Amino acid sequence: MSASVLRGVVAPILTPFNDDLSIATDLFLAHGKRLLAEGCAGLAPFGTTGEALSVGIDERIEALDRLIDGGIDPALLVPGTGLTALADTARLTAACLERGCGGVLLLPPFYYKGVSDEGLYSYFAQLIAAVKPTRPALYLYHIPPVAMVGLSPSLVRRLFADFPEAIAGIKDSSGDWANTQALLEIEGLVVYPGSELFLLDGLKAGSAGCITASANINAAAIAKVVERFDAGDGAGAEAQQAEISRFRKLIQGPGAIPGQKRLLAMETGDARWANLRPPLLSFNQAEGQAFAEKLGRAA
Amino acid sequence: MSASVLRGVVAPILTPFNDDLSIATDLFLAHGKRLLAEGCAGLAPFGTTGEALSVGIDERIEALDRLIDGGIDPALLVPGTGLTALADTARLTAACLERGCGGVLLLPPFYYKGVSDEGLYSYFAQLIAAVKPTRPALYLYHIPPVAMVGLSPSLVRRLFADFPEAIAGIKDSSGDWANTQALLEIEGLVVYPGSELFLLDGLKAGSAGCITASANINAAAIAKVVERFDAGDGAGAEAQQAEISRFRKLIQGPGAIPGQKRLLAMETGDARWANLRPPLLSFNQAEGQAFAEKLGRAA
Repeated sequence: MSASVLRGVVAPILTPFNDDLSIATDLFLAHGKRLLAEGCAGLAPFGTTGEALSVGIDERIEALDRLIDGGIDPALLVPGTGLTALADTARLTAACLERGCGGVLLLPPFYYKGVSDEGLYSYFAQLIAAVKPTRPALYLYHIPPVAMVGLSPSLVRRLFADFPEAIAGIKDSSGDWANTQALLEIEGLVVYPGSELFLLDGLKAGSAGCITASANINAAAIAKVVERFDAGDGAGAEAQQAEISRFRKLIQGPGAIPGQKRLLAMETGDARWANLRPPLLSFNQAEGQAFAEKLGRAA
Repeated sequence: MSASVLRGVVAPILTPFNDDLSIATDLFLAHGKRLLAEGCAGLAPFGTTGEALSVGIDERIEALDRLIDGGIDPALLVPGTGLTALADTARLTAACLERGCGGVLLLPPFYYKGVSDEGLYSYFAQLIAAVKPTRPALYLYHIPPVAMVGLSPSLVRRLFADFPEAIAGIKDSSGDWANTQALLEIEGLVVYPGSELFLLDGLKAGSAGCITASANINAAAIAKVVERFDAGDGAGAEAQQAEISRFRKLIQGPGAIPGQKRLLAMETGDARWANLRPPLLSFNQAEGQAFAEKLGRAA
């Protein structure tokens, strides 16, 4: 594992929007700083949780610049850059790497369904030829429940073997531990499970940590599992894992994005946090209150 | 039905690529002109068949300009403009309407799955507020087998009722005649089935024609169904429908795009026609020969 790999909890940060649905860069920066202060090893802006596919290329670049200009070390950023068209993905990926981002998260092209591994291989090979990364900074992003186009372990193995100068690892949001295990068997590949449910099992099997949506509202507790594991406190890590797993199971589901946003609106006092871009919809006050009560976070 | 509606067969034209995978605008223009000469009522560039989601926004605009500058009446063009981010969709849609395109085809935002009708309504309402169309030129594009996010007849009815100044109709690529029938019951809505299998049944029930991929290689025969129907030749239309349905069934399937492209390479003598962008892959010579033989079009 190269020294530049982020070890621990990486937060796929929510993207806050002003009332006109432009990105609220002040909240974005403050939230990013808070999560790092709470123990996150890095931030993954513009993932699925960050409503990435509702945010344009140039908007993403401008918002990243606001994070970096605001004092966040770009080496701690792993933005999502995967779009459906190769030229668009290449432009966004290159912009992130030029800014010194620690990595980027790459969805497969997700419009056409039932595509072959050979076709996906060709896409990534052409992307790497276009971007010409000078360091292993590309993280593949496997999230079949949403993208509906996945990256099989055999495809990942082939890509990693053929492009070790470009590909660093993978985020596995399959929710399938057997799949994560298959990825962890690929020597040298950096693997982040996409949920803290697999955090401790992953650490034991050699993963780098996890990239998990619920870090937006539970970062410190999740980070504590890694701290205890790294300190050799096995029993403490197990106990903490049980606690964060219990919390995670309360959050999971279709309301995870609007629920966490409404909770942040309640807890920070800034109502803009409740805004989402369509096709996703905001939780109203009552839905937010019910979500907060379920989590034991009601005022 | 407004006078500007294209009646008959609209071809979702294949996008030809040079060997470096840039758009081969010379072939694109020649193909568009040939399809219009063969009897197509219009062209729908950058649909699913046109590998739209593998083509960037600016590339699409430049290629459309080449069609228009090359002599194709923009009123005959209904380009696909639906992307996942509203601002991107709005920019591309506005560019097409400014150029006088007869309409645009709008996918729903297709990354997030399981979204609500209310969320999709909000997306289109905000899109219309951003673009401010001055004529009913928006065609919704329902293709659940690929987009995995669909537009229910009740949502379509609501959008058409609330935005009659903007929305003209829908392309229904569900492959489900019951769904097309439900759409045809919405008074004033222009409906194009997404396959010529439903062409004659659609015409009888008030559809405007069809928008079908196989028009790329069978335009004249498909257009003849509409001609005969409009001329009151019921028996002739039925016979022609049987013939084009037989041909269509031979084309359908995952090989439809590479197969038709390889066939055009063979029939025009221009090998560039065989190129596809990843994640889709080209047919090789043998696959193309088998495809041509299946269709009775082998040399």
